[in-house]
Amino acid sequence: MKLYTYFRSSAAYRVRIALNLKGLAYDAVPVHLLKDGGQQRKPEYLALNPAGLVPALEVEGQVLSQSLAIIEYLDETQPAPPLLPSDPLGRARVRAIAQAIACDIHPLNNLRVLRHLKREFGISDEQKDAWYRHWCELGLAAVEAMLTGDARTARFCHGDAPGLADCCLVPQVFNARRVNCRLDDLPTVMRIAEACEALEAFRLAAPAHQPDAE
Amino acid sequence: MKLYTYFRSSAAYRVRIALNLKGLAYDAVPVHLLKDGGQQRKPEYLALNPAGLVPALEVEGQVLSQSLAIIEYLDETQPAPPLLPSDPLGRARVRAIAQAIACDIHPLNNLRVLRHLKREFGISDEQKDAWYRHWCELGLAAVEAMLTGDARTARFCHGDAPGLADCCLVPQVFNARRVNCRLDDLPTVMRIAEACEALEAFRLAAPAHQPDAE
Repeated sequence: MKLYTYFRSSAAYRVRIALNLKGLAYDAVPVHLLKDGGQQRKPEYLALNPAGLVPALEVEGQVLSQSLAIIEYLDETQPAPPLLPSDPLGRARVRAIAQAIACDIHPLNNLRVLRHLKREFGISDEQKDAWYRHWCELGLAAVEAMLTGDARTARFCHGDAPGLADCCLVPQVFNARRVNCRLDDLPTVMRIAEACEALEAFRLAAPAHQPDAE
Repeated sequence: MKLYTYFRSSAAYRVRIALNLKGLAYDAVPVHLLKDGGQQRKPEYLALNPAGLVPALEVEGQVLSQSLAIIEYLDETQPAPPLLPSDPLGRARVRAIAQAIACDIHPLNNLRVLRHLKREFGISDEQKDAWYRHWCELGLAAVEAMLTGDARTARFCHGDAPGLADCCLVPQVFNARRVNCRLDDLPTVMRIAEACEALEAFRLAAPAHQPDAE
């Protein structure tokens, strides 16, 4: 398997965690989002992934895109250890936590969006950081409420083994720390993120451990 | 089943389509995103769905959130007709198309985001529309490339029966038309959207057919 990745992309970070949790070896192909005007916009990469985003996973002669779709594929084809629970209500809950991050927070704070804001509306770096923190804090507060209000939250987001929701939570918390979000009101989110970060699968997937880290 | 919905919400629209495709009856509970300072932010609703977003589905004594998680739940508990193919590569493809819309386009054009842009950066209505069209056109161009470049695209996004990707495509095309996006370069997207719109399940899920339509 070949993973097209960028060390700091949180979507790629999610997939790296999932691959590590499954114990699957892969070749990392770095796609630098800033160099050469953005390597993800080169024709060679667009031929693989027309959306021009990372990550993408080359497997079985095909190229899969979208981090959550890739992780579900890994979970279906390499079921142990499972990243989703077996009951439909539990699966819906785990997917909802993952999507509360992947749909409601991350897309607003993507590099391409921050650049567009600056280019089109001429916002300052301060305004850019405030925008980032606003969506990150609002979204993580919702995740905190989803976690604290539910007895299925345990050592990890859903039970005592890490899964899809944790694969999304940790990269988002990484970003939240990087932009100095307020984290005091997120005791459950932070407790779970720290439990994850103690595991090698999460540690080795972190941006600083990637071959393309700067 | 009770669906918390807003006629114009594209995430709720997706779930309405899925419920109709499955032939499942439900009670629609309108949550008006503009009235009363936003009914989705009232404590009664936040107690059901802490993210304060629509849709939410009350079922089996629980409240599910996030449109894609809800549709996957429906597909797992009411398998006929299936909204995802049975092979893992096909499932990954359908989910990736759905997420290219639900993660890469829609979150940027959400009502709350447009309002935030206006409030924080004081952008004009023209700038707001340009922002909307930018992400919608860029994202739908990626979806068009995903569809045209793949032999599994047929009458619908994946094969000859509508599924999860189509549930996402039609509401996004509805939005694209509403804000006058350029659609000429999207022959496959538009052909499939029109094939869907000819079906009653899609027609009855449209904003104009909702009890809370204005």
